[in-house]
Amino acid sequence: MERERAGKMEITTRAPGKIILAGEHAVVHGYTAVASSIDLYTVVSLRLSTEDEDTIKLQLNDIGLDFSWPIERIKEVLSHLGSPFSSTPTTCSLETVKSLTALVDEQSFPETRIGLASGVCAFLWLYTSILGFKPATVIVSSDLPVGAGLGSSAAYCVALSAALLAFSDSVKLDVNQKGWLMFEETEVELLNKWAFEGEKIIHGRPSGVDNSVSTFGNVIKFKSGNMTRINCNMPLRMLITNTKVGRDTKALVANVSARKSRHPDAMCSVLNAIESISDEWSTIIQSHAVDDLSLSTNEEKLGELMEMNQGLLLSLGVSHASIEIVLQTTMKYKLASKLTGAGGGGCVLTLLPTQLSGAVVDKLVEELESYGYQCFTAGIGGKGVQISFDGSS
Amino acid sequence: MERERAGKMEITTRAPGKIILAGEHAVVHGYTAVASSIDLYTVVSLRLSTEDEDTIKLQLNDIGLDFSWPIERIKEVLSHLGSPFSSTPTTCSLETVKSLTALVDEQSFPETRIGLASGVCAFLWLYTSILGFKPATVIVSSDLPVGAGLGSSAAYCVALSAALLAFSDSVKLDVNQKGWLMFEETEVELLNKWAFEGEKIIHGRPSGVDNSVSTFGNVIKFKSGNMTRINCNMPLRMLITNTKVGRDTKALVANVSARKSRHPDAMCSVLNAIESISDEWSTIIQSHAVDDLSLSTNEEKLGELMEMNQGLLLSLGVSHASIEIVLQTTMKYKLASKLTGAGGGGCVLTLLPTQLSGAVVDKLVEELESYGYQCFTAGIGGKGVQISFDGSS
Repeated sequence: MERERAGKMEITTRAPGKIILAGEHAVVHGYTAVASSIDLYTVVSLRLSTEDEDTIKLQLNDIGLDFSWPIERIKEVLSHLGSPFSSTPTTCSLETVKSLTALVDEQSFPETRIGLASGVCAFLWLYTSILGFKPATVIVSSDLPVGAGLGSSAAYCVALSAALLAFSDSVKLDVNQKGWLMFEETEVELLNKWAFEGEKIIHGRPSGVDNSVSTFGNVIKFKSGNMTRINCNMPLRMLITNTKVGRDTKALVANVSARKSRHPDAMCSVLNAIESISDEWSTIIQSHAVDDLSLSTNEEKLGELMEMNQGLLLSLGVSHASIEIVLQTTMKYKLASKLTGAGGGGCVLTLLPTQLSGAVVDKLVEELESYGYQCFTAGIGGKGVQISFDGSS
Repeated sequence: MERERAGKMEITTRAPGKIILAGEHAVVHGYTAVASSIDLYTVVSLRLSTEDEDTIKLQLNDIGLDFSWPIERIKEVLSHLGSPFSSTPTTCSLETVKSLTALVDEQSFPETRIGLASGVCAFLWLYTSILGFKPATVIVSSDLPVGAGLGSSAAYCVALSAALLAFSDSVKLDVNQKGWLMFEETEVELLNKWAFEGEKIIHGRPSGVDNSVSTFGNVIKFKSGNMTRINCNMPLRMLITNTKVGRDTKALVANVSARKSRHPDAMCSVLNAIESISDEWSTIIQSHAVDDLSLSTNEEKLGELMEMNQGLLLSLGVSHASIEIVLQTTMKYKLASKLTGAGGGGCVLTLLPTQLSGAVVDKLVEELESYGYQCFTAGIGGKGVQISFDGSS
């Protein structure tokens, strides 16, 4: 293949996480939501081994777990599929998921990491579907906390699909270019489909929003299954506070539905209000600020929209004591915050206006971290998945 | 007069405070709100002096201030009005307010109490309008914090008007009855009108809701200036937490209007949601619970409505760090809370379900008071103004 011919045996890809700027939960009921990429990445390095090696290795750096499978063993497990696999994205059947899970379970890994099995399954499916049984080592590391609603699994699937496709015939990139490179439009479309297949193994019935944001970057408006990519034309920075409180997304979604059936009129108005906020968000971030004044006016409006959205999320019943602590803390600094994602814990966004001094942010972060929370500063609406041939990472 | 003839020279009246159960701020924009009396009272004792005394005395027990005016001095100040005054409720002219204020200012009272001048003016206006220049001592004491949105000034005007009218020919009550007595319907109508005139001196342009709730008790639904009295048919108890954070109601109302003009669609939906909540409140509290189960179902619904309403008030931008602390604290006890009144500080309501143990309430109160807040437990929807001839208080 081209990469190999060019003597490039190792490539690195990175895919961003996501946040929901507005409209979480409302989107479940057919109302508009807006999601954005953040400049926190999952990075995948793929190094092809020499042909005499006969294993596929996966290193998950953040949790310190290494997997290694003899290629013959994998072939055996997947023998029911025949060969070669399709080169277009295909869904992993339930039967194959079971076989792969059994394979993953052969390696002992801590009980507490049991949820990772599906992530390793997704790896094996994407790997063998795209690269077949070529020996290689794949190393994954990430800025993104797992299970906090920042799209870590999607970023993982996207970066992984990108790295694998880079060694396939589907992707044509100039290996001699330096730095982080973008894929072609048709390539990212393909890559996104593969990533979605990985997400399905991990999540069952994902919406496709997370992998699309991670793949395409920027901002995506979505409603009733339709996604519209929009450009964020203003610089925008958020403080993301991970309360580390785990939540049950399904239960939260079910509770909102139950509340909607108990108070249909009020809840309908609440959801309408959220949709208006999503619409305003997408209008404002697409506008080009002509000067600092109009930028700061737009920032104020967005802060106001965040405060309003948070109030509406409280109305939906998806807030949590830990989220309230973050709100109360950032309110002291006159900064607007809202939960992002399912709520009931998870992450909280705080808008950091461009004029805000770093010293204030440091003080706020210190205060938030004193509660045991984890803070990230993230730029909003950056690029999607990228690749590097020179180890830019 | 009748009271005097019966040898009763002293009577006591009490008038309840109020809370807004749902719809504050929305009501300013023409949407429905629901207010209720609480069983916290302002108590007024009026003792007629013997005719050879020639002063009118006012004792404000809670703040430890005593006023005393020679009757001749008051007559002199009000000489421009002629005599006798009208026996129907009349508005105190700006000129008279000025004259009375000058009279009040003759007595030194602390700078920090300067806001009280209007309350003392209202006293002098109501007193002289209803009782003329009869010498007496009026003693006021109250459970209600001042300026916290619990209708303390209205309760003061109502209890005062009731005490004064009890010595006039307008009220016919059997002085030999024991305990707290209700006034006749026509009497309370009259009394409410007088109290409203007092409120005007204190507040300029009051809505009339506070004095109506204090006068009639129970629950009042109001929209676009129209009030409907409704019956609360369920036992309902609230914890009222006074954050003691003072606020500027006018500025808060103006901020909501400004936000509405910046985000008309979203805000309109938010206000619609609040109206639906007010409507649900009035439906639920009018319903008769047939058993403990349906009572507890109704309590859960009201708690949910309070949480939703609070979220919507946050959306309007009228919350405050102190309110958030109360919310966060009560959330730990799985109790629903909302601010009541203008927000930006002031008071927060927490629904206390009938099944909740006193020990839990005590613990919660202790925690809230550790922040320097003041807590009251109050029954909702009780009787309005009452009178006692035997010192029931």
